[in-house]
Amino acid sequence: MSEPKKDIEILQRLYAVIQSRKDGDPDSSYTASLLRAGLPNIAQKLGEEAVETVIAATTGDDKQIICESADLLYHLLVIWAASGITPDDVWAELAAREGVSGIAEKASRKI
Amino acid sequence: MSEPKKDIEILQRLYAVIQSRKDGDPDSSYTASLLRAGLPNIAQKLGEEAVETVIAATTGDDKQIICESADLLYHLLVIWAASGITPDDVWAELAAREGVSGIAEKASRKI
Amino acid sequence: MSEPKKDIEILQRLYAVIQSRKDGDPDSSYTASLLRAGLPNIAQKLGEEAVETVIAATTGDDKQIICESADLLYHLLVIWAASGITPDDVWAELAAREGVSGIAEKASRKI
Amino acid sequence: MSEPKKDIEILQRLYAVIQSRKDGDPDSSYTASLLRAGLPNIAQKLGEEAVETVIAATTGDDKQIICESADLLYHLLVIWAASGITPDDVWAELAAREGVSGIAEKASRKI
Repeated sequence: MSEPKKDIEILQRLYAVIQSRKDGDPDSSYTASLLRAGLPNIAQKLGEEAVETVIAATTGDDKQIICESADLLYHLLVIWAASGITPDDVWAELAAREGVSGIAEKASRKI
Repeated sequence: MSEPKKDIEILQRLYAVIQSRKDGDPDSSYTASLLRAGLPNIAQKLGEEAVETVIAATTGDDKQIICESADLLYHLLVIWAASGITPDDVWAELAAREGVSGIAEKASRKI
Repeated sequence: MSEPKKDIEILQRLYAVIQSRKDGDPDSSYTASLLRAGLPNIAQKLGEEAVETVIAATTGDDKQIICESADLLYHLLVIWAASGITPDDVWAELAAREGVSGIAEKASRKI
Repeated sequence: MSEPKKDIEILQRLYAVIQSRKDGDPDSSYTASLLRAGLPNIAQKLGEEAVETVIAATTGDDKQIICESADLLYHLLVIWAASGITPDDVWAELAAREGVSGIAEKASRKI
């Protein structure tokens, strides 16, 4: 009897799915078509989803914020996959800042 | 001897730190000042980080993409915290889409 | 024999056309459908065109900058029309800053 | 006795001022410092002003829309100046679309 997959791992699984679409058929996979389109076009889509997230947050529509956040995260993962960046690269960047902030939060620009 | 914290949990930890800043001093914590400023102002910052991510992706600067992605994720988590949305709410939204896409990827809008 | 319309007046003419679409048929006029959709949806479109302008400027593609600038200006005028703002309101705001800058450019935030 | 300058000419005058800052001192002129920073940095500022315009339009704050529109237009003109694009290039693009739309609005993507 296997453990249920923990939701927190969803970003890793989603990234793996995106990676597997790199040689996929652009006609049947949106991810494959995005990856084929190249970074400026993926960036354009990320920008559009960010604008939708900004509007959802400004109007305070929680359901919409959740949906647009999911769209935003998905497109961010596609940018990483297209660039050869792994989620671990970004987690490491966040962890590095976390350390700084733990020791001297006042002095840190972030968190 | 404890296991090292897995990097994948960084977003959960970061979210908990942001939550803990809700009653913090805006003068000593950037997060506390953001949360105090309200959703439209947090949305503005998210938008700015998204534009920086778009530019980094367009120019193909990997190091910059990693940094801007970290900034973008941090501000996204602040929007969630300010809205009372948990990371699990967003993971569940992503997981729901994942299910759809696993069964009938062609028919799905995403992935 | 009439003078040719000066190109500089194009924004005024375009604004008048947009105004005239307020009671138009959304099925036959893109402007009418935008105005019907309401400010958050028009803002979303403006945001998308801004992202395209950002990408065109980042890649330095002059022809693309011109096209995206035209799209951006058009959607900005639609926001004005939907809000009851006239071009003169915005020209007056720019002129007010111009005066400040003419007198004391160093002290001014802008120009 | 000369006619007062018409407000509609403000964009042309503003563009001329921006042009004149190309060799200006970045320490005393914001425009000179922007032009010195290069297109990706000007694009970043345009993106930020666009996000502010999106938020102002979403909340329906007319005074804010006017201010942010002025900021957006100013930064758009700086992108043009930095790229060697003239306002006339963009007016011509808008006029070309206007012609199309005058003849066959239904068939046109825009207006």
